[in-house]
Amino acid sequence: MNKLISLALFSVAITTFSCNNPDAQTGADPDNVREGLIFPKGEKIENGHFHGTAWLTSLVVSDSTNFNAVGSVTFEPGARTNWHLHPAGQIILATGGVGYYQEKGSPKRILHKGDAVKCPPNIPHWHGASPDQQFIQIAITGRENGPTEWLQPVTDEEYDASK
Amino acid sequence: MNKLISLALFSVAITTFSCNNPDAQTGADPDNVREGLIFPKGEKIENGHFHGTAWLTSLVVSDSTNFNAVGSVTFEPGARTNWHLHPAGQIILATGGVGYYQEKGSPKRILHKGDAVKCPPNIPHWHGASPDQQFIQIAITGRENGPTEWLQPVTDEEYDASK
Repeated sequence: MNKLISLALFSVAITTFSCNNPDAQTGADPDNVREGLIFPKGEKIENGHFHGTAWLTSLVVSDSTNFNAVGSVTFEPGARTNWHLHPAGQIILATGGVGYYQEKGSPKRILHKGDAVKCPPNIPHWHGASPDQQFIQIAITGRENGPTEWLQPVTDEEYDASK
Repeated sequence: MNKLISLALFSVAITTFSCNNPDAQTGADPDNVREGLIFPKGEKIENGHFHGTAWLTSLVVSDSTNFNAVGSVTFEPGARTNWHLHPAGQIILATGGVGYYQEKGSPKRILHKGDAVKCPPNIPHWHGASPDQQFIQIAITGRENGPTEWLQPVTDEEYDASK
């Protein structure tokens, strides 16, 4: 009986260890990858241009040596930006979860981890999470032609369209 | 006795399940995150400007709407670029493993997942994997001032310095 209890505990320990142990070859960090995270979630965005809850980690600030600002944004399920445009355009890299991206006049796109989007300059668009899953993205935004111009909120009808 | 066997098997099953089951909330994909991957490894780089084996997935190409080229590079352990410079600079985002980055005249830096580096225009530098772990990075390279200028190989002495 004691042997069986020991076997049970040993089996659980081995299974747990093989789950939690970082892979020395890849350097994968299970505490982060379990959450789909590479970068910290950062600070809650409270600029009034988002619907729902989203978080931002600034990775690189724009300066005279490189006009790109780079940040990682985490949208909680259902969260999204207002419509907005970038005078020098934007590149979005989807790094986790499931998200939406839509340019004015075009159908909504569904984004998965690994997708990349090039948003042209001055094209109104919005992005955010799907209703049931969070969405994590890297945003690469050129600041050489001025700041982001924020527009009207995305309506529920726009968000829900063509699901 | 049978109850104990059942308990042991149930415990292992639960632990295994909680390890391998994708998190529906985050959308984390265990087949990818186990390898530290977000983007596919892509094609082997065979341009003669690298030492060892490295792989590239092009994510965004430079064009007139956005001069940034974006790619994910995977360096196998010990692999590195030659010394080189970018006329419009480069941003490196470390997404997995452990890597090195060095600008001419400065000490080598060790990069881990989540680190961001802004490499100024026209500064000779190199980057690559540590000897024992691969390194995965996103490179954001402005092409508005011309292509990358490739320089001499990184010597073993330079690579090994100040480990």
